[in-house]
Amino acid sequence: MTSPVFRFAVRSDLPAIVALLADDEKGKTREDFTDPLPDVYYRAFDAMESTSSEALPNKYLLAVLGGDIVGCLQLTLIPGLSRQGRLRAQIEGVRVSSKHRGQKIGEAMILQAIEMSRALGATLMQFTTDKSRGDAHRFYERLGFVASHEGMKREL
Amino acid sequence: MTSPVFRFAVRSDLPAIVALLADDEKGKTREDFTDPLPDVYYRAFDAMESTSSEALPNKYLLAVLGGDIVGCLQLTLIPGLSRQGRLRAQIEGVRVSSKHRGQKIGEAMILQAIEMSRALGATLMQFTTDKSRGDAHRFYERLGFVASHEGMKREL
Repeated sequence: MTSPVFRFAVRSDLPAIVALLADDEKGKTREDFTDPLPDVYYRAFDAMESTSSEALPNKYLLAVLGGDIVGCLQLTLIPGLSRQGRLRAQIEGVRVSSKHRGQKIGEAMILQAIEMSRALGATLMQFTTDKSRGDAHRFYERLGFVASHEGMKREL
Repeated sequence: MTSPVFRFAVRSDLPAIVALLADDEKGKTREDFTDPLPDVYYRAFDAMESTSSEALPNKYLLAVLGGDIVGCLQLTLIPGLSRQGRLRAQIEGVRVSSKHRGQKIGEAMILQAIEMSRALGATLMQFTTDKSRGDAHRFYERLGFVASHEGMKREL
């Protein structure tokens, strides 16, 4: 088994990323993966870049295997005051291509995100996952995450 | 009952904010509220500012009553690609001074954060709350939040 390599996304990766976001039971109804890709994704990418820096990224991390983008996650480093100014790393939009599941790519990607976040000074990683995704919870618990919090959401 | 006024925090508000963060069952063991305030809070404030803009703030919102800071919350607007580039508003570190609880200041502060987030284009507000804080869940459910997700955390 070949290990993926990791890099942060650039603007031209957007169609491949949105393809991954849509390649999912919930994602397929939530995304608009058409050619050309709707401009809303490009505007969102530019907004992410505007909040991002090398020290405090808000970027998509990509897993690349044989030149193909096979996995992604959004990594956001969020500085804050609570817990003595603890720097949090937050992940979102975690996906592995349906053709490449069962190859531990998701695990490698989370471990990569953990290593990068530690190197940037984060002391906590967090995310929310829909309660209906039971398999996902077990996956993350194996990687050391604890479902200690309620993830509360409200449409605006 | 007087209504609070709201504004974003500036650097000189930090001692008052940390006093609020520490004025809480969990916060009192997690914060280091001493005089002078530890430099780690000032560094964290500056890091927040470095990720923040008028369009996409990462700032503490303050509730002010008769000149006193009586409530706070961290409001972070997080652009991302998923759900067609949906802009999320995230809150953290929600506190009301123990002397001012029961006056609906928390509710007014959340409603203010919702209004500001909507005006900035966010379509979802989210946060995580410790499962042991049962009262908090009921408070947020009354304000339209749904505990639809697991909030997973991992120390790094």
